[in-house]
Amino acid sequence: MIPMKSNSEITRLGATELQHRLHRGDLLAADVAAAHLEAIAERDGDVLAWTFLDPDHVMRQARTLDELRAGGKPVGPLHGIPVGLKDIIDTGDMPTCNGTPLDAGRRPRDDAFVAALLREAGAIVMGKTATTELAVMNPCATRNPHDLGRTPGGSSSGSAAAVASFMIPLALGTQTNGSVIRPASFCGVVGYKPSRGMVSRRGVLTQSPTLDSVGVFARSVDDAALIADVLAVYDGGDKAMRLQAKPRLLDAATSAPPRKPALAFVRTPVWDRAEPAAQAAFARLGELLGAVVEEVELPRDFDDAHRLHRTIMLADIARNFGRYEVKGRDRLSAVLSGMIDEGRTVPAIDYILAQDRVEVLNDALDSIFDRYDAILTPATTGEAPLGLTATGDPTFCTIWTYCGVPAVTLPLLRGENGMPVGVQLVGRRGDDARLLRTANWLTRHLTQSGTAPAR
Amino acid sequence: MIPMKSNSEITRLGATELQHRLHRGDLLAADVAAAHLEAIAERDGDVLAWTFLDPDHVMRQARTLDELRAGGKPVGPLHGIPVGLKDIIDTGDMPTCNGTPLDAGRRPRDDAFVAALLREAGAIVMGKTATTELAVMNPCATRNPHDLGRTPGGSSSGSAAAVASFMIPLALGTQTNGSVIRPASFCGVVGYKPSRGMVSRRGVLTQSPTLDSVGVFARSVDDAALIADVLAVYDGGDKAMRLQAKPRLLDAATSAPPRKPALAFVRTPVWDRAEPAAQAAFARLGELLGAVVEEVELPRDFDDAHRLHRTIMLADIARNFGRYEVKGRDRLSAVLSGMIDEGRTVPAIDYILAQDRVEVLNDALDSIFDRYDAILTPATTGEAPLGLTATGDPTFCTIWTYCGVPAVTLPLLRGENGMPVGVQLVGRRGDDARLLRTANWLTRHLTQSGTAPAR
Repeated sequence: MIPMKSNSEITRLGATELQHRLHRGDLLAADVAAAHLEAIAERDGDVLAWTFLDPDHVMRQARTLDELRAGGKPVGPLHGIPVGLKDIIDTGDMPTCNGTPLDAGRRPRDDAFVAALLREAGAIVMGKTATTELAVMNPCATRNPHDLGRTPGGSSSGSAAAVASFMIPLALGTQTNGSVIRPASFCGVVGYKPSRGMVSRRGVLTQSPTLDSVGVFARSVDDAALIADVLAVYDGGDKAMRLQAKPRLLDAATSAPPRKPALAFVRTPVWDRAEPAAQAAFARLGELLGAVVEEVELPRDFDDAHRLHRTIMLADIARNFGRYEVKGRDRLSAVLSGMIDEGRTVPAIDYILAQDRVEVLNDALDSIFDRYDAILTPATTGEAPLGLTATGDPTFCTIWTYCGVPAVTLPLLRGENGMPVGVQLVGRRGDDARLLRTANWLTRHLTQSGTAPAR
Repeated sequence: MIPMKSNSEITRLGATELQHRLHRGDLLAADVAAAHLEAIAERDGDVLAWTFLDPDHVMRQARTLDELRAGGKPVGPLHGIPVGLKDIIDTGDMPTCNGTPLDAGRRPRDDAFVAALLREAGAIVMGKTATTELAVMNPCATRNPHDLGRTPGGSSSGSAAAVASFMIPLALGTQTNGSVIRPASFCGVVGYKPSRGMVSRRGVLTQSPTLDSVGVFARSVDDAALIADVLAVYDGGDKAMRLQAKPRLLDAATSAPPRKPALAFVRTPVWDRAEPAAQAAFARLGELLGAVVEEVELPRDFDDAHRLHRTIMLADIARNFGRYEVKGRDRLSAVLSGMIDEGRTVPAIDYILAQDRVEVLNDALDSIFDRYDAILTPATTGEAPLGLTATGDPTFCTIWTYCGVPAVTLPLLRGENGMPVGVQLVGRRGDDARLLRTANWLTRHLTQSGTAPAR
C-alpha cells in the first residue's frame, strides 16, 4: 500500500480517481469519509451546504464498506465514494425535509430509487444538502463558496456548493427549470441533467412530473458520467421512464469522437437577458472555436417555449403543493403561495397544449442534432449575482428542461468579477452518451489551447 | 372442395369459423366478400350502417387474397375475413370523414396502425361504418337492426349495427366513454374494449389521449379474441401503449378456467339509472348464477369517477376539437359546441388531479380482482331507447373507461320489448386473457342452463 494521502489531497481527487484508488486498496473508504468530513467541518460554517450530516453514521457506512471489501465481497462502481443528496430525495436513514418548515423532521420510510441505487453501488451517503423551499424559488442559507456574499444558485444550492468547495466529489440535485445547471454554473462545477426518462424520480419530491429531472454535480465530466451510469436504471414506478439499453456514459465520455465535433451556437430567444460580460465571453469563445461552431437560430416555434414551460410548471405546482397550503399557508413563502394561486388559474386546455408542444419542439431540435453534435449556449445570464435573497435567473435552462433534452454545464468561463460562468452543451433527447463525449472533447480542446481557466 | 354454402349461410358464420374454412380452402375470399356485399345490399337501405362502401374495391381485395393463397403464399389469421372500420379510423384507400361535414371527402394519406395490421393479417377492409359526429354524441343515421325505430347506440353505431345484421362478422370501433360497449349491448353483439395501452390509436381521430380505446365488435367472444390478437401489437407512436408479451387472447378464450370463476356483481354508483326491467333482469341473473357471483360494493372513491371522467373528456375535447370550431363552428352540433365551450373552462389542476386518480381507483379495483375473476355489471341502462335523435346513456361504461380496464359485453339478456341487453364483464387492467376466458365460461354456463336467449 502506498502512503496515505493527506485529507486535503484526498478531497481534491475526483470520483473516478477515488474509484481507482479505493478499488486498488490504496485508500480505505474510512479514509475518504474522514477526509471529506474534515473538509465539511472546516468549511460548512461559511458555506452552509448541509441540512443533515451525521459523522458517526457516515463513518459506520465507510467501515462497513471497508469490511465488505476486506472480506472479498465484490465492490460497486461507487465503492467508498461520498455522495451528497439534495434534501428532497428521500432517505430511509436520514430526515428529508424538502426545504420547508412544514416538513421539518420528516423521516421517509424508504430510500428514493436513486438513493437505493447509490447504496447498492457502494456509495457513502454523506448527508442531505440544502434546497430552496420545495425546490422552487425561496432560497436556503447556502452561500457561494467562491464569494460568500453571492448566491450559489438554486434550487440544488447545497449540492452545487458542497461539490465546488471539495466537501464531496459528487452530489445529486434536481431540475424543474434551472436547478442543476444554474447552481453548477454559479459554483463553477460540472452539472449534468440527463434526458428525461433516464433517471427515476420515485421517492423524490414531485414538483412537476413532466419537468422534474434528477441531475448530478461533479468536478469533471468523467465523474458525472460515472455516477449517472449508476443512476440510469429503468424503474417501472416512474411513468416518464423510457426503457433503454445501459447508456455506458463513462465509456462514451472517455472515448474520442469519431471526427471533430460540430457545435451549434444558439442564442435562444432570451439572449438579451445575458449580461454584457457573458455575451462578450461567448463571442470570444466563438472566435476561439472557429469552424467548430456555427450560429444556429432556433425556429420561431421556440419563442413560446418559456411560456409553455411556465404553464406546465405552475399548474403542476398548484396540484402538487396545494397540500402544503393546507398544512400551513402562513409557513410558505409569499413567492410560492403566489405561484400556487397562479397555477390554480391555468386552464386545462393551455396545460394540454403545452404538454403536446414538447414533441413539436423536439422534432425541431432533432433537425439541429442531425447536423450538430451539440448545442452550445449559455448556462446562466452570467456570474452568480450578489446577495442571498434570490437564486438567480434560470432562463437559459428553461427551453432544455421543457424539451427534456440532456444538458451539461462546463465551468469554462469567468465573469468580470472572476466568478465562474458555465458553458452549456445540450444534446439530443436520449443521446446523453454523445453529449458527454462532446463535453469532454470541448473541455480538452479549450484547455489545450490554454484559454480555459484552470478548474 | 365441399359444395359452396349459400350467401346467407356464409354471412351467418362467425370469424373463427370463416377462418377455418378459408384456411382449408372450403371457401374463397371472393365468395365471402360477395356474400357479405349481398347482405349489405339487402339490408343497408334500412340499417344505414355504412358511410363508404366500394364493392369493386372489396372484390379486388378478395381476389388478390385468393391469388396469394393459390400461389402458395402464407395466409394471415384474418385471411379473407371482412372487417368494417368505424369512420374515424384512417384508411389510405378510402375516405375517413369522422362523422362531420367538416371532414367530408377527407382522404388520409396513410392507414391507421390498426388498419395496417388488419391488412397484414389478410382481412378484407369492407368499408367505413357510420359514427356519431367526431365520435361524440350527435347521432348518425344508423338504425338498430332489431328495431329500426330505435338507436343502435353510439358512437360506433355503424360497426355495431353491421355486425348485428350479419353484414360483416367483425368491426372496429372506439370508446371514450361508452362507444363500444353501449352499441354492442343495444345491438345484441359482443363488444370488447381492451385494456388501455394494448391497441394503438395512431391514425385514429383523437378525442382524448387518456380515454380513447380502439375496441372490436363480433358475434362471439372467440371472434373478438381472434381480431384482438391481431391488433395487440406494440406501437411506439402511441405513448399510452404498454410493452407486453402477446396476450394470446384466442387461446385463453377457448381454454377452460382452472377452477370455476368467481364474479363480483357491482351495481356502481349509477345503479338507479338502470331501468327497472334491467334491474330485475340482473336480479334474476344473480339468482341463476348462485354462488358464482357475490355482490361487491365499490369503495366511496368511485363516487367521483363520473365527474373525473368528464373533467378529462371535456378538456381533451376542447383541446382536440377546437380546430373544427375554427373550420366552421356553424357546422358543429350544438351539443358538441357546448362541450367544447365547457371544456375550455376546466382548470388544469382539476384535469391533473383527475388524471392522477386513475391509479388510485385502479389500486382499489386490483383488490377486487385479487378475489374475483371479473366484475359483472350492466353494460347499459337497459334496451336501446326509441328514437334516433340520441344514442342512449353511456353511464355504465364510464368508470371502466376512466380506469382503462378491459371490458366486454355479452348479449345474454333481453329487455321488456324483446330488445337485447348486454351483460358487461370487467377485468383487471392488462389481464384481458382472463377476462375473455371468463366471458366465454359465463356464456357457456348460461347457455347450457338454458336461460340465455338464443342469439
